[in-house]
Amino acid sequence: MFYHDKRLQYPVKVENPDPVYARMLQQAIGGVEGEIRVCMQYMFQSWGSRGPNPKYRDMLMHTATEEIGHIEMLATAVALNLEKAPAQLQEEGASDGIVGAVMGGGNARHTIEGMLHRHLLSTGMAAYPANAEGVPFDMSHIYASGNLAADMYCNVAAEATGRVLAVRLYNAAHDPGMKDMLHFMIARDTMHQQQWLAVIEELGGLQGALPIPNSFPQSQEDQKHNYDFFDTGLQGSEAPEGRWTHGPSLDGKGTYSVFKNVPMGQVPDLGPARPDSGAETQQIS
Amino acid sequence: MFYHDKRLQYPVKVENPDPVYARMLQQAIGGVEGEIRVCMQYMFQSWGSRGPNPKYRDMLMHTATEEIGHIEMLATAVALNLEKAPAQLQEEGASDGIVGAVMGGGNARHTIEGMLHRHLLSTGMAAYPANAEGVPFDMSHIYASGNLAADMYCNVAAEATGRVLAVRLYNAAHDPGMKDMLHFMIARDTMHQQQWLAVIEELGGLQGALPIPNSFPQSQEDQKHNYDFFDTGLQGSEAPEGRWTHGPSLDGKGTYSVFKNVPMGQVPDLGPARPDSGAETQQIS
Amino acid sequence: MFYHDKRLQYPVKVENPDPVYARMLQQAIGGVEGEIRVCMQYMFQSWGSRGPNPKYRDMLMHTATEEIGHIEMLATAVALNLEKAPAQLQEEGASDGIVGAVMGGGNARHTIEGMLHRHLLSTGMAAYPANAEGVPFDMSHIYASGNLAADMYCNVAAEATGRVLAVRLYNAAHDPGMKDMLHFMIARDTMHQQQWLAVIEELGGLQGALPIPNSFPQSQEDQKHNYDFFDTGLQGSEAPEGRWTHGPSLDGKGTYSVFKNVPMGQVPDLGPARPDSGAETQQIS
Amino acid sequence: MFYHDKRLQYPVKVENPDPVYARMLQQAIGGVEGEIRVCMQYMFQSWGSRGPNPKYRDMLMHTATEEIGHIEMLATAVALNLEKAPAQLQEEGASDGIVGAVMGGGNARHTIEGMLHRHLLSTGMAAYPANAEGVPFDMSHIYASGNLAADMYCNVAAEATGRVLAVRLYNAAHDPGMKDMLHFMIARDTMHQQQWLAVIEELGGLQGALPIPNSFPQSQEDQKHNYDFFDTGLQGSEAPEGRWTHGPSLDGKGTYSVFKNVPMGQVPDLGPARPDSGAETQQIS
Amino acid sequence: MFYHDKRLQYPVKVENPDPVYARMLQQAIGGVEGEIRVCMQYMFQSWGSRGPNPKYRDMLMHTATEEIGHIEMLATAVALNLEKAPAQLQEEGASDGIVGAVMGGGNARHTIEGMLHRHLLSTGMAAYPANAEGVPFDMSHIYASGNLAADMYCNVAAEATGRVLAVRLYNAAHDPGMKDMLHFMIARDTMHQQQWLAVIEELGGLQGALPIPNSFPQSQEDQKHNYDFFDTGLQGSEAPEGRWTHGPSLDGKGTYSVFKNVPMGQVPDLGPARPDSGAETQQIS
Amino acid sequence: MFYHDKRLQYPVKVENPDPVYARMLQQAIGGVEGEIRVCMQYMFQSWGSRGPNPKYRDMLMHTATEEIGHIEMLATAVALNLEKAPAQLQEEGASDGIVGAVMGGGNARHTIEGMLHRHLLSTGMAAYPANAEGVPFDMSHIYASGNLAADMYCNVAAEATGRVLAVRLYNAAHDPGMKDMLHFMIARDTMHQQQWLAVIEELGGLQGALPIPNSFPQSQEDQKHNYDFFDTGLQGSEAPEGRWTHGPSLDGKGTYSVFKNVPMGQVPDLGPARPDSGAETQQIS
Repeated sequence: MFYHDKRLQYPVKVENPDPVYARMLQQAIGGVEGEIRVCMQYMFQSWGSRGPNPKYRDMLMHTATEEIGHIEMLATAVALNLEKAPAQLQEEGASDGIVGAVMGGGNARHTIEGMLHRHLLSTGMAAYPANAEGVPFDMSHIYASGNLAADMYCNVAAEATGRVLAVRLYNAAHDPGMKDMLHFMIARDTMHQQQWLAVIEELGGLQGALPIPNSFPQSQEDQKHNYDFFDTGLQGSEAPEGRWTHGPSLDGKGTYSVFKNVPMGQVPDLGPARPDSGAETQQIS
Repeated sequence: MFYHDKRLQYPVKVENPDPVYARMLQQAIGGVEGEIRVCMQYMFQSWGSRGPNPKYRDMLMHTATEEIGHIEMLATAVALNLEKAPAQLQEEGASDGIVGAVMGGGNARHTIEGMLHRHLLSTGMAAYPANAEGVPFDMSHIYASGNLAADMYCNVAAEATGRVLAVRLYNAAHDPGMKDMLHFMIARDTMHQQQWLAVIEELGGLQGALPIPNSFPQSQEDQKHNYDFFDTGLQGSEAPEGRWTHGPSLDGKGTYSVFKNVPMGQVPDLGPARPDSGAETQQIS
Repeated sequence: MFYHDKRLQYPVKVENPDPVYARMLQQAIGGVEGEIRVCMQYMFQSWGSRGPNPKYRDMLMHTATEEIGHIEMLATAVALNLEKAPAQLQEEGASDGIVGAVMGGGNARHTIEGMLHRHLLSTGMAAYPANAEGVPFDMSHIYASGNLAADMYCNVAAEATGRVLAVRLYNAAHDPGMKDMLHFMIARDTMHQQQWLAVIEELGGLQGALPIPNSFPQSQEDQKHNYDFFDTGLQGSEAPEGRWTHGPSLDGKGTYSVFKNVPMGQVPDLGPARPDSGAETQQIS
Repeated sequence: MFYHDKRLQYPVKVENPDPVYARMLQQAIGGVEGEIRVCMQYMFQSWGSRGPNPKYRDMLMHTATEEIGHIEMLATAVALNLEKAPAQLQEEGASDGIVGAVMGGGNARHTIEGMLHRHLLSTGMAAYPANAEGVPFDMSHIYASGNLAADMYCNVAAEATGRVLAVRLYNAAHDPGMKDMLHFMIARDTMHQQQWLAVIEELGGLQGALPIPNSFPQSQEDQKHNYDFFDTGLQGSEAPEGRWTHGPSLDGKGTYSVFKNVPMGQVPDLGPARPDSGAETQQIS
Repeated sequence: MFYHDKRLQYPVKVENPDPVYARMLQQAIGGVEGEIRVCMQYMFQSWGSRGPNPKYRDMLMHTATEEIGHIEMLATAVALNLEKAPAQLQEEGASDGIVGAVMGGGNARHTIEGMLHRHLLSTGMAAYPANAEGVPFDMSHIYASGNLAADMYCNVAAEATGRVLAVRLYNAAHDPGMKDMLHFMIARDTMHQQQWLAVIEELGGLQGALPIPNSFPQSQEDQKHNYDFFDTGLQGSEAPEGRWTHGPSLDGKGTYSVFKNVPMGQVPDLGPARPDSGAETQQIS
Repeated sequence: MFYHDKRLQYPVKVENPDPVYARMLQQAIGGVEGEIRVCMQYMFQSWGSRGPNPKYRDMLMHTATEEIGHIEMLATAVALNLEKAPAQLQEEGASDGIVGAVMGGGNARHTIEGMLHRHLLSTGMAAYPANAEGVPFDMSHIYASGNLAADMYCNVAAEATGRVLAVRLYNAAHDPGMKDMLHFMIARDTMHQQQWLAVIEELGGLQGALPIPNSFPQSQEDQKHNYDFFDTGLQGSEAPEGRWTHGPSLDGKGTYSVFKNVPMGQVPDLGPARPDSGAETQQIS
């Protein structure tokens, strides 16, 4: 179960509120690279964790809990970017371009963006769980497969795209408070990438953990094509050379080679449609 | 641009059609672990590929093209499991349990499952781009970040969960044709896991490619917390030891340690609501 | 604006309530082939109708209004299939298989289907706006393009898949009341198919209305390939002959022929990534 | 920020694992009446809270934090229902109906349900953030309007449908552990209904808080129709009498009456389409 | 069943078409606070209505029917804001900023917003069933629980957020026609809030209708925690005092108090993974 | 199975990169009128094709394969519009880092659009499978009904809305490369409209193929209302005359007439709610 402290994990300050930047930050809340995703992903991986050693369950929960606080920081940052606090500063701000647009003043409203999105219409100037384009986060992005190694790679993928996003937000930021907040978040993503890969290491590294799932006997998979790169290019578009076209495979269990793809199967034939299946008569007989 | 051969990449045979199994196979078509996802993900990564060396663009396209053929195999397998071809065999089949259910005969219709889903109502006994629960595939699952290393980990994640799914389908299969088809697909997933990791290897391995993105100067991230495991557990729920709590980090650029999480930030204060913002009066003054 | 009469457009009777059939009917309410779709599609086409003659706006509204009543009939049919009224009949029914399952009695509950879905958990035995698999209807399926001829073909498509669905439901029905209701709905779909095609006829038929939009001067489209069938098959998979491979086109404005597809364009080259774009270093220089 | 204790808020015990019941419980996790919804809704309402008094922000956070623990309890309950622990009990279980179906043994696999859904294929026998039909939870259901009173009614609605769901699950449960868990959750929903209504009370009750938002001067709304019930029924379908058709309104600011609805507006005329707008020629001139 | 009159319920006039405002209005059509939602919600509540007294079924249908006309008014308002009618006025308009942007003229096109969204590309300058950010309305937002009191609170929530939205749109409007239309809609929302609460009143008010569902014997819920506010804050973040922390509960059936949250449950233990479940080997034994 | 050539089907050149236009092009990639839709729709129709003659299966696959190349062209066009190639041209445009590059410099960042969307934050300046508003493409739009004629009309609808979109994009384009690319795509849409209608022609035209499905005996549908236009307008809103109100129907199987709609059914009565169904007490007895 869970507890909270009403203080933030790390300071969130905004000197110059910027509603355009608020919207960009939404990607880090409700985007697929964002914090709701990692929070919920680690939660569900922890809650469904099976195995003789509870350490992975526990470890996942520590980080899942940390991530709730990251959503909180970003939600606070969005709200602060949407308005100056206290209120009278907003009025001052209203004379200049974008901020004015959000306030509804004069021609500036046609600067558009602020006016349109749901920060104005739906939330009363606060964050909401959607991405920078207003697409709500959808929980099908919570990957929790029941296979520990697969889950760790899902987590590395999430933290890799997450740090790429945080870097882009950092590069786009002008406010020192936002730069400071993001330089902390980028650091946490660095650790989280390292942390999930360390679990792969504990599982024996690429040799021990792969192919995923390692509990399936490789003798039962097709032995002719399990380390072949399939070349699907026509003349002039042949496959390029790379670490994946020759030499021992990274799991130490095969040798890479190139296979020029050819059809090994039949022309499919599904037969006619059934008489009562709602097809056209011409499909039936 | 693209060409096709009307033969399948690998044989798809079904001796004993099984509509329940057809539905399970849908997960490998339209599930987030399925083939539409990897096909489209590699396509978009290839089409958006930037960098001085076109080899990664090219390599991605070879595999993307291979994956279209995997969707085709699975779609064929679904259709064959939904009906025996030619048609008269279906009538024979109608005397036994489940197959009968799909046909609409007698009490068997109450065996339910076949009757309800959209294989009967919406597709005329064919595959459709949805998962085993009928949830349509949604393209937000196509991860193509513009960062090559992040994309490779997204691909490893996709092929890891993909092979886990294929193994579960193999274990649940009774038909030798389905076992044969899946033992080929499992082998391809083995290679694809190896293939994307080989790109990380070419980029210099964990030391060269991480933290992702490696183009962001680490000096600009928070140096105090970039290799700390944050412990968010109260007394009795402390963080477990692991490869990630001490020793050099896997990227060779830091040292793991444990940080007992504490609030470093403020209590957030957004101030009162604006008078014309549609809040309650009590929130405004 | 709108009015209602509390009586149904056509009688809806259920002699033998069947919760499995209730679920199948959901496809006709909230499926993409269902009645919410056509109702809202015709509404939005009418509300957005432009042109010197208001007759199409008016005609669309007559049918849109009819369709609300179809949703109502189906919603009533679902509720009646979910329970016998009055309540004591339910208890009688509880002794037999499926109905018992829904009631929660004995082993029968493991007949499963009824127990699980949201008719039990979320609606208290009533219809909801989702398809037979519980996927909620999503309004992106409302096609209203602003082009009258395109909209008419969207409507034919909707009524064609709608009548296919209604026929499948009719074939799967055992209850005479459900057969009666559906034989009315199938008839209405017949008319609606005819009705939208009659608008194409009024616009001048295939020669007058096509290519859609007919307001774009065909002289501005590529004259070399506007009536070519593109053959994308490799050796052994050549394009079959058909009405579309030779002879005058149906719009009377061209001649069909076959073009063996070849790349006419370049190898794409997007150049390196920008330094501050969050790519890997190796993509940048 | 947040902390966790690895113990559950309340005991979760399952004597007789039941995969069908596991699926029903999913509705309370990822359904719109479920716990992810209330947890995230209260979080975002708290994080976006504006006003001179921080008590509502704080109060919301206490309950939001409680709700994470409810998701955790339900996720644990789903996993326990999917398998007996330790493993050898599963094998025993495999001889009987449903549990056997999940295990993949013999004919029992055709008992279907367990086989098909993603508990088997996607999660390795654990909970996932979707409803009882596998539809993933989508964050557009997080209502946080920036108006405190509107939010409180959204919360009452969530807890009312939530308690209805919990009662249905309680009525469908056979396992004493599940009954015990749910009798706790039902109690919490009782309190949460009371709690949000108490905020309305603090805001002055129906007279003080309504109409929402109470900061909009009612003098600016249409004074002729703001307490009229609009009758849209034709002859024979007239509006029934009720508390809402006569007497003082509940907010004390008007008097209910009935208005026979009539068109007060014009026939809409949008004019012809623009020449370059992709309409048919017939719509343009 | 339903009828229509081609005149609008209330006049919709636009003196100065404004495509930016058209987009804002979309929120009131296809947003979760919008009119499609309430229309369909009341329809489905009415169609699924059970109980000895048909008055609630009937009353819901009167208002559901009214709401179709509200969608119609807004759809008309969107179309009128997107273009001046007749066509030549548009050309005049093209010289000024925003309207020019929509028309595609000169630099103004970079004023952007109008250019991009689907009013130009997908609808030919008409409304579509999506919100102000183009996210299509999704029918999972139709709440119809089968419990009358729960449904009434869902309706109050819908009309409360709906009136907040309408007020924000009113405050953002410059056109007198739009102000007039909205001052009517705001009035209707006032009544609708009152109307659904009047049903609660008829059911006996908070004492009679709550806790929802009132048909579940409260003796079966946990008696220790059903009126406790759970405090989940650590030291320094204790729960604030309020109407909900002491005194009699609003339903008259308990006494509010504060409970300092503690884990009452166990540390979850799901045991090892099954051998054939696709887990990693390390999770199995 | 499939092959590729790394050259594009048709040249894609961009002289003046324009990020706003890039976003508009997204509609042709991931919009419901776009190329992913037709590609996948023809694929699934082909893969599920049943009937004695494989020509329709084959023909569909030729065009499905062509369409992959169209997605590729558009994805390339988006990337080229997002950045000038080679890199140094980008630098000219860029007065201030990333932000400037997108906007073309200076304060222009507040011109907004480029800043916000996911081309900057999520893809590193490349296409993604979403529409012009960032809504991801969802595979429920893949219509493949198992009825050949219904599918052909779905395809005509797709190509009709597709060509309308392409024309709108052509009209909005300023770059000669984009005009050239689109004049090719518009031509292909012309052919595709003709091609699917030619299949209807082969099936016997409107007389042979309709009503769809033609395999259902029309004698079983309601003979009284299958060619009636239902008039749902009240006095003053009567149905307009048209080709659909009199004369022989287009399928040659009936005669159009007008029917003044009246209720033929009963007032629905679902009876009271069941005691254990979670309803309010007042609904039960």
